[in-house]
Amino acid sequence: VSAAAIDHARLNAMPFGDVVFSQRSIRRYRPEPVPIPMEDLQVIMEAAVRAPNGGNAQPARFVLITDRARIEKMASLYKDAWWAKRRDEYGWRGIDDIPADEKNLLSAARLAETMDRVSAIVLAFGRARNRFGQAENDATSVVPAIQNLMLAARALGIGSIPTRLHPDVLERVYDLFGVPEGAYLHLMIPLGYPASPRAFGLSRRLPTSETVFLNHWGDAVPWA
Amino acid sequence: VSAAAIDHARLNAMPFGDVVFSQRSIRRYRPEPVPIPMEDLQVIMEAAVRAPNGGNAQPARFVLITDRARIEKMASLYKDAWWAKRRDEYGWRGIDDIPADEKNLLSAARLAETMDRVSAIVLAFGRARNRFGQAENDATSVVPAIQNLMLAARALGIGSIPTRLHPDVLERVYDLFGVPEGAYLHLMIPLGYPASPRAFGLSRRLPTSETVFLNHWGDAVPWA
Repeated sequence: VSAAAIDHARLNAMPFGDVVFSQRSIRRYRPEPVPIPMEDLQVIMEAAVRAPNGGNAQPARFVLITDRARIEKMASLYKDAWWAKRRDEYGWRGIDDIPADEKNLLSAARLAETMDRVSAIVLAFGRARNRFGQAENDATSVVPAIQNLMLAARALGIGSIPTRLHPDVLERVYDLFGVPEGAYLHLMIPLGYPASPRAFGLSRRLPTSETVFLNHWGDAVPWA
Repeated sequence: VSAAAIDHARLNAMPFGDVVFSQRSIRRYRPEPVPIPMEDLQVIMEAAVRAPNGGNAQPARFVLITDRARIEKMASLYKDAWWAKRRDEYGWRGIDDIPADEKNLLSAARLAETMDRVSAIVLAFGRARNRFGQAENDATSVVPAIQNLMLAARALGIGSIPTRLHPDVLERVYDLFGVPEGAYLHLMIPLGYPASPRAFGLSRRLPTSETVFLNHWGDAVPWA
């Protein structure tokens, strides 16, 4: 398959701005997972690799998980690791232990509990060594592809959220999926259809007048 | 400025797929830099912050450089640092030292030589410590915003390329822009109008049949 052969027309149903301004991290998926058509998954992955990467070295590799048994295994590892981290940090053992005002953690916990509802999972890898044999953080060559992937999914009505795996479970994940020496996981991205038809929408963010400066740190932008 | 007040209609002139499948790293800019309208820069930055980030902690901060004297200072630092690195690695001191078949390095060298032609520069920062006071790599909370930024620029006909700064010049950059303790630069993104009207187009990538695996590392996707 040559790159030129890819038909990306199915990603043109939405205008660019509407996709970007309605991408939200989706944490609630339909209880009965609906498979994502393989042609949708293909165009999502084609969109991913279009993103820039350092020197076109293309270190990114992806494992696309569609097999239900493997999704459930991954979901179970994710859930165990999520709770292990919260047990270590806060002593929490279940949703009832989380204070009601910790809204972000509560919805993250619900995601961990229901990760087996997603339709597919993408594991996104970089490589631990560059061509000079030096240890390297190549996030800047992998994460742009992940963002393209999530935007393309949203353009097709598919929700996603970037998640990290606890280091404790990484070795088990690498064994499960046959990940070779020298590759390492940046992010795990579940994909699925949102439980609510109103799930997509404008994300809550600090105003850019507080996070963007003009010409010098702290100096106001003209639209402030 | 509340997030809801942002009009992103100017980003809707192109359909989503056409933006993603024609984003290319732009290394040649018009010799006479044309200023980017501030309303374009604003909507580009609004698009940037819409990208997902870990736990909505929003560590990303941006310095948007539009002042010509500062762009020229930054361009000069970038050029010096670029050549310093190549001198250390390969002993090269100028474009004539680069072998003709090193096309990526040749175009990177040309970019370094002509960085003062860009219309604006964005410096994208994360923070070196998380809320537990631990050293942290928050690339996964900053780089998605950079990718949104570059896609939004492309939707407006503005070229960009993610670049790294040599560690040797970071302190000088931090001094120049008043970057506080605890913030660190992920990437520098020049923005400008491409020299060629045919600059945007499909990027050259390995086929996804080689970089995406189905359910297990090394196993072929159905479209292979």
